[in-house]
Amino acid sequence: MSQKSFHVAVVGATGAVGQQMLNTLSEKNFPIGKLSLLASKRSAGQVITFNGESHTIQEATPEAFEGVDLALFSAGGSVSKQLAHEAVKRGAIVVDNTSAFRMDPNVPLVVPEVNEQDLLKHNGIIANPNCSTIQMVVALQPLHEKYSLKKVIVSTYQAVSGAGAKAVEELKEQSKAVLNDEPFEASIMPCASDKKHYQIAFNAVPQIDKFEENGYTFEELKMMNETKKIMHLQNLEIAATCVRLPVETGHSESLYAEFENGNPSVHEIREVLKSAPGVTLQDQPEEQIYPMPALAAGLPDVFVGRIRKDLDRDNAYHMWVVSDNLLKGAAYNSVQIAESLIKLNLL
Amino acid sequence: MSQKSFHVAVVGATGAVGQQMLNTLSEKNFPIGKLSLLASKRSAGQVITFNGESHTIQEATPEAFEGVDLALFSAGGSVSKQLAHEAVKRGAIVVDNTSAFRMDPNVPLVVPEVNEQDLLKHNGIIANPNCSTIQMVVALQPLHEKYSLKKVIVSTYQAVSGAGAKAVEELKEQSKAVLNDEPFEASIMPCASDKKHYQIAFNAVPQIDKFEENGYTFEELKMMNETKKIMHLQNLEIAATCVRLPVETGHSESLYAEFENGNPSVHEIREVLKSAPGVTLQDQPEEQIYPMPALAAGLPDVFVGRIRKDLDRDNAYHMWVVSDNLLKGAAYNSVQIAESLIKLNLL
Repeated sequence: MSQKSFHVAVVGATGAVGQQMLNTLSEKNFPIGKLSLLASKRSAGQVITFNGESHTIQEATPEAFEGVDLALFSAGGSVSKQLAHEAVKRGAIVVDNTSAFRMDPNVPLVVPEVNEQDLLKHNGIIANPNCSTIQMVVALQPLHEKYSLKKVIVSTYQAVSGAGAKAVEELKEQSKAVLNDEPFEASIMPCASDKKHYQIAFNAVPQIDKFEENGYTFEELKMMNETKKIMHLQNLEIAATCVRLPVETGHSESLYAEFENGNPSVHEIREVLKSAPGVTLQDQPEEQIYPMPALAAGLPDVFVGRIRKDLDRDNAYHMWVVSDNLLKGAAYNSVQIAESLIKLNLL
Repeated sequence: MSQKSFHVAVVGATGAVGQQMLNTLSEKNFPIGKLSLLASKRSAGQVITFNGESHTIQEATPEAFEGVDLALFSAGGSVSKQLAHEAVKRGAIVVDNTSAFRMDPNVPLVVPEVNEQDLLKHNGIIANPNCSTIQMVVALQPLHEKYSLKKVIVSTYQAVSGAGAKAVEELKEQSKAVLNDEPFEASIMPCASDKKHYQIAFNAVPQIDKFEENGYTFEELKMMNETKKIMHLQNLEIAATCVRLPVETGHSESLYAEFENGNPSVHEIREVLKSAPGVTLQDQPEEQIYPMPALAAGLPDVFVGRIRKDLDRDNAYHMWVVSDNLLKGAAYNSVQIAESLIKLNLL
């Protein structure tokens, strides 16, 4: 039986997430008929090898989307705002990994393990959620389905690769400078577009993205608002504190979750998560087995461990959730969305 | 007016906290008549300079406490269990920085800004709380006095120096190895006395101290139980998740706090903390001003920032609390206790 294949465009092909998208498309053996690698004018002309074949980067212009079936965008919000509708106009379905359309009521925000069916309502653009949101909802959804989620408090431990390849370089160079007692100047972290920059090496910085007037950062509000949208829980109580760490890849999250129904044992919670899609349970405290970013980097799973019952409330639990922010947090989830589009006959 | 002076013994004088105790005694100009520096047999004979004078380390034996007025212990729980009562028997007051006596109902557990009056009930030994507990209660107590604390959920971001000088060395050597792509073997973190050891460089490890049967670590239970004892709040709802980071010095904490009375504005919360003893407010999001371990190391204050109202509950708040775990978290608090003993005519 011959399988349908697609003209796929990757926008932002030279970036950290773009590279992971290509890796994921290759590893998943995605049915690509034709591949267009698009990027800024500056990167045009570069040659990238994909599945053994050389591809020349083209400039991402409206015309570059002629004939494209599927366009995976990961080149920043302004590029998506400028070009996503141009791609749709030319017949492509866009899976956008930026925050440009996530809260648009006409755009489904999708984590396939959680709300794949929302794809049926798409209007050409599908948004890929924020990295820190994705791993959290993958862990919470199977528990919500059984026990009905009421309240979430999350504190994050986020890796610098979420801020791009230059941020990773800054972490490495700065770490060397600190270890050698040499001077350095911070120029990217915590937020390249904000006024001040701080040391990230051997530090913990409680700012990711810019601040809103209510004192929360955009990253924190993204986690809170996107979770409600993806899980269809407009009345969920949820609060986030987002912190950047000197970790290259792999976001970690300390989660507190209260449920409406039942007070399952830790054993029951583990059983639910063991059979949950996308989740790998790593929870044997007696053997010191728990998730850590150093173990999760490079893997597509969402790892869950440190599951404990709250000692004061029977319906509340604590857990520790880790995933590769470039894979399940970005590229892998985007390609999964594309696979779901095929499965649902939408592509 | 001549001031009374005291024969002070520092037990564990060669350790990371012992060194900070000597620095703090010197900086605070503590009235020392005679100084005995005690340590294990292995360290005996070493010479340490204090206020320009050379002192030879003596072995910590029962007899070494003859004539001592004040003994500051920081040489591990087993040394305290073995020698604290011997010191008391010989007339000394012991301020113990280990976990040996913290939950003993006959031993006051004291943070001077919070429960100085508990010193009046001492029986020779006073316990210095766990580092991560101290900075949290200093931030919470002034708010509790006004609004009555009901529930706390804390996730920590803890520095390796809390695990001793060897752990700091491991972080540095491992960081170099990772940066140079060289092999390394973890041998101390996350817990020297536990079975397995994991990479701490560029990682986040959700284990501090060993695991209890209920899935919490000792560190987490210490924070929960010690907070109740220090604040005299046996019914406080409190849960902790403790995580070790690749930070040399300075613990950070993401705190969620619910209060019984009133729903103060963030401005009011800031005003209370501004005038609170031991607290320095660093909370101007519009100027990207918030606490960070890289800024807090070497300073005795507890820094509080990122104060936000919970968006779902009027009586709930989020904040970020940072302090030097070797100073306010250990040595500085111990010396403050000694100062309080003088102030209360107990020494």
